[in-house]
Amino acid sequence: MYENIISIDRASSESLQTQIRRQMAIAILGRQFPIHHPLPSIRKLAADLKVSVTTVTLAYEALKSDGFVLGKGRSGFFVNPDVLAAENSGYEARTGSGAVEETASKVDFDTLFGERSFDLDRVVKPADALLRYRYPFICGLVDPSLFPITSWRECLRDSVNAIELRNWAADFSDIDDELLVEKLIQRCLFRRGINAHPSEVLVTIGGQMALYLAIKVLHRRGESIGIEDPGYPDIVNIAQLERLEIERLPIDSSGVIVDGIGAHLKSVFVTPSHQFPTNVTMPMERRNELLARTSRNGTFVIEDDYEAEISFNKTPPPALKSMDKNGNVIYVGSLTKSLMPGLRIGYLVADKAFVREARALRHHILRHPPVNNQRTVALFLQRGYFDRHVKRMTDVYRERCDVMFHELERHFPGHSTRPVYGGGSIWFRLPEGIDSHQLQEAVKRKGAVFEVVGNAFSDTRLNHSYIRLGFSLIDVAAIPAGIGVIAAAIHELATNSTPL
Amino acid sequence: MYENIISIDRASSESLQTQIRRQMAIAILGRQFPIHHPLPSIRKLAADLKVSVTTVTLAYEALKSDGFVLGKGRSGFFVNPDVLAAENSGYEARTGSGAVEETASKVDFDTLFGERSFDLDRVVKPADALLRYRYPFICGLVDPSLFPITSWRECLRDSVNAIELRNWAADFSDIDDELLVEKLIQRCLFRRGINAHPSEVLVTIGGQMALYLAIKVLHRRGESIGIEDPGYPDIVNIAQLERLEIERLPIDSSGVIVDGIGAHLKSVFVTPSHQFPTNVTMPMERRNELLARTSRNGTFVIEDDYEAEISFNKTPPPALKSMDKNGNVIYVGSLTKSLMPGLRIGYLVADKAFVREARALRHHILRHPPVNNQRTVALFLQRGYFDRHVKRMTDVYRERCDVMFHELERHFPGHSTRPVYGGGSIWFRLPEGIDSHQLQEAVKRKGAVFEVVGNAFSDTRLNHSYIRLGFSLIDVAAIPAGIGVIAAAIHELATNSTPL
Repeated sequence: MYENIISIDRASSESLQTQIRRQMAIAILGRQFPIHHPLPSIRKLAADLKVSVTTVTLAYEALKSDGFVLGKGRSGFFVNPDVLAAENSGYEARTGSGAVEETASKVDFDTLFGERSFDLDRVVKPADALLRYRYPFICGLVDPSLFPITSWRECLRDSVNAIELRNWAADFSDIDDELLVEKLIQRCLFRRGINAHPSEVLVTIGGQMALYLAIKVLHRRGESIGIEDPGYPDIVNIAQLERLEIERLPIDSSGVIVDGIGAHLKSVFVTPSHQFPTNVTMPMERRNELLARTSRNGTFVIEDDYEAEISFNKTPPPALKSMDKNGNVIYVGSLTKSLMPGLRIGYLVADKAFVREARALRHHILRHPPVNNQRTVALFLQRGYFDRHVKRMTDVYRERCDVMFHELERHFPGHSTRPVYGGGSIWFRLPEGIDSHQLQEAVKRKGAVFEVVGNAFSDTRLNHSYIRLGFSLIDVAAIPAGIGVIAAAIHELATNSTPL
Repeated sequence: MYENIISIDRASSESLQTQIRRQMAIAILGRQFPIHHPLPSIRKLAADLKVSVTTVTLAYEALKSDGFVLGKGRSGFFVNPDVLAAENSGYEARTGSGAVEETASKVDFDTLFGERSFDLDRVVKPADALLRYRYPFICGLVDPSLFPITSWRECLRDSVNAIELRNWAADFSDIDDELLVEKLIQRCLFRRGINAHPSEVLVTIGGQMALYLAIKVLHRRGESIGIEDPGYPDIVNIAQLERLEIERLPIDSSGVIVDGIGAHLKSVFVTPSHQFPTNVTMPMERRNELLARTSRNGTFVIEDDYEAEISFNKTPPPALKSMDKNGNVIYVGSLTKSLMPGLRIGYLVADKAFVREARALRHHILRHPPVNNQRTVALFLQRGYFDRHVKRMTDVYRERCDVMFHELERHFPGHSTRPVYGGGSIWFRLPEGIDSHQLQEAVKRKGAVFEVVGNAFSDTRLNHSYIRLGFSLIDVAAIPAGIGVIAAAIHELATNSTPL
């Protein structure tokens, strides 16, 4: 009876109880059980699935403790409506009469923030891409099915021991988890060609915080920063809120064009490994040129090596930082794109004088990143789980990338750039007259979702002419149909639109 | 033979294996085993402790996987010298010949940062207070022996399930963990008399980040902020690096003196529940006065309700925010003082227009706080573990406070302020002529440690005349001897010093 909801795999390394628990939870979230009727009884479910009553009892107890179900015993178990409430519109719907009403502001905040709001246009990914869309072409999020959850649990468990004994009553404002720093140096930086001393590494809350610290430490208000065009919108936002003069630097198929980098620039933000958002890789010659020019000019280089560990190449080009003889490169990396994204472990590598300043600024902002996550990730790196995970992920991504590029070329020859370095997305130029925002709305109705590029280009019209199609979340088998949905929507929009 | 190192408690709920593992680890860190000799063999230890060989084998395997021991099998187990390396001076000592040398800076960073360094004087707690000192009078850190580690582990385990299913491929920039926000409202804010709507709550990395966001959202460069004198040094630092005009506001035994709050102040920073660092509680009348004056003037109030959950009073005075009819109070709270300090879960409560701005700024700085910790803490709150833990901790702290106050009064009558509200420290005026920094050095040699008050007073001489003695880490039985050490050192310094 529940075969279409729960399928038991006796060959799986996952226990029967866990299988039932997981699949029930997914079915509950997917609203496959009516809310106000009892769920299948323990005995019934045990008989249907041919498992013991104890197994089902434990699975139900776990579901209850996780908040997925309510009730127990004779009256039976019910879906906990709270667990579905996230998809309802209002908070009141969830909490009932006890909830506090939203109140109107008494202070005139609009006037207070009006001309200097932090609420800039920023790229926010849909929080439920995986649950809600059949074809999630979102970038920068990790496929949970690829994650070695058992190894992670082991590290999580052991991190509590280590923390309990050594790190408990500690203040980590002035030091980071030493094992984590050591392993970042050995397992991540070394692979990028960077030989760093621990005093040159700072742990941050994701790459975002490393970028924020780098810009704030380097710049005074009114100074100039160069940013690739198109480039990473969040950097434009940070520079804007720090009241910097922003100069956009055009790119070509080798990345940023160095001639445009004037001596008046205090820093330039670049993504040499695979340019954001176009995915082009900067060749060695251009790198040498960039370093020579910035060193001569006294310009700092902020290198964002995002997604660096996902390289389709057996010998990926090393980071720009590895060639930095002058100490003017600030390197930013992150484990967010390859580990659990919610962990937010990033790092900054720079001269130790720079790191000392960045650490002091970090203290003022938040004292230090959570200690428990630092230790868990350190163990995950130390035990080789990270290396293994990245290898597996890279293989999967390479295949997805191939299929996606092939499908896109089939529908729209010449519109896609195949990523040479690696990563998790393909840069796609929309056919003439197609607007990315209109297309996004059209495909959402058909179960597909992708991100528009925000303010990547300084020329705002171009921001509607390209999309970044991510393959980190979507199963390879779903790619042809998903690209098919996008292609059909493009053709439909092209037919319906009247040329201007 | 190992009785003085490992003592097995067969009545304990902790398994034998865990007991051995824990106590061995503590002994290793305490250097009770020689580094280059084998540790007791599995068989020997099993015989000595009268436990099975399997139990000891599992304990050793766990110690190995935690990195405390090396080797296995016939050659025996050894202490892993790495685990002790944190106490060595240099990194090189630990990693050997493969380590990277520190290199001299090639860029002139001293000139770059010289006049505008973030590296301000700031209070950093010793990272190893608990391991290194017999009498740790450090403030704001939590006694690990009080922490319900089993309940925590359960929440940690279950949080992985919930994250896996619902939150994995999510971007939490625009939302916080909804269960956490709900539980903060129900279990923490409600207790402080605050009825908040979820749109009025923002999760932060500790209270520090909530303060940073509050100041940055409220203030433009050059605007004025009022800060209690003495007051929290970290706030002075943030205000300074945001280039604000700082006005120090004197306090009396009812907290900040309201008459001094002029209309030119854009905000005032206050700690009404128990003033930092003096512990005085602001009476109702003064609170009304403060709210009336700031509302009239259009001044915002930043209320830091640190350690609020540790109240010795059955009906503690509610937070200032609970009386805020005008919406000009920004409330800052944190679970750092009562949970694992390394977790860094804080929150900000304010008008929803303010929270929207603070959330946008948070995005620019670090996108969002780690998701896994949010969920673990949410479960810990939901299941009532937090309430139970706080109750137990409060009972223990109350007793420690009584003993400490009594001992201090015995040695130095009239020098201490008994905290009325609660918290984890006693404010102590040093006898005439005693310098807190000299005293700190003197007692460290005798196994005691406390914090000096940093730049709490604007009058820098006063910063050497007071100390904050924390009782959150020290066992009640050790307090009399610990205070004795401080008293003896004070008498010795008084005798040796020649009066000016």
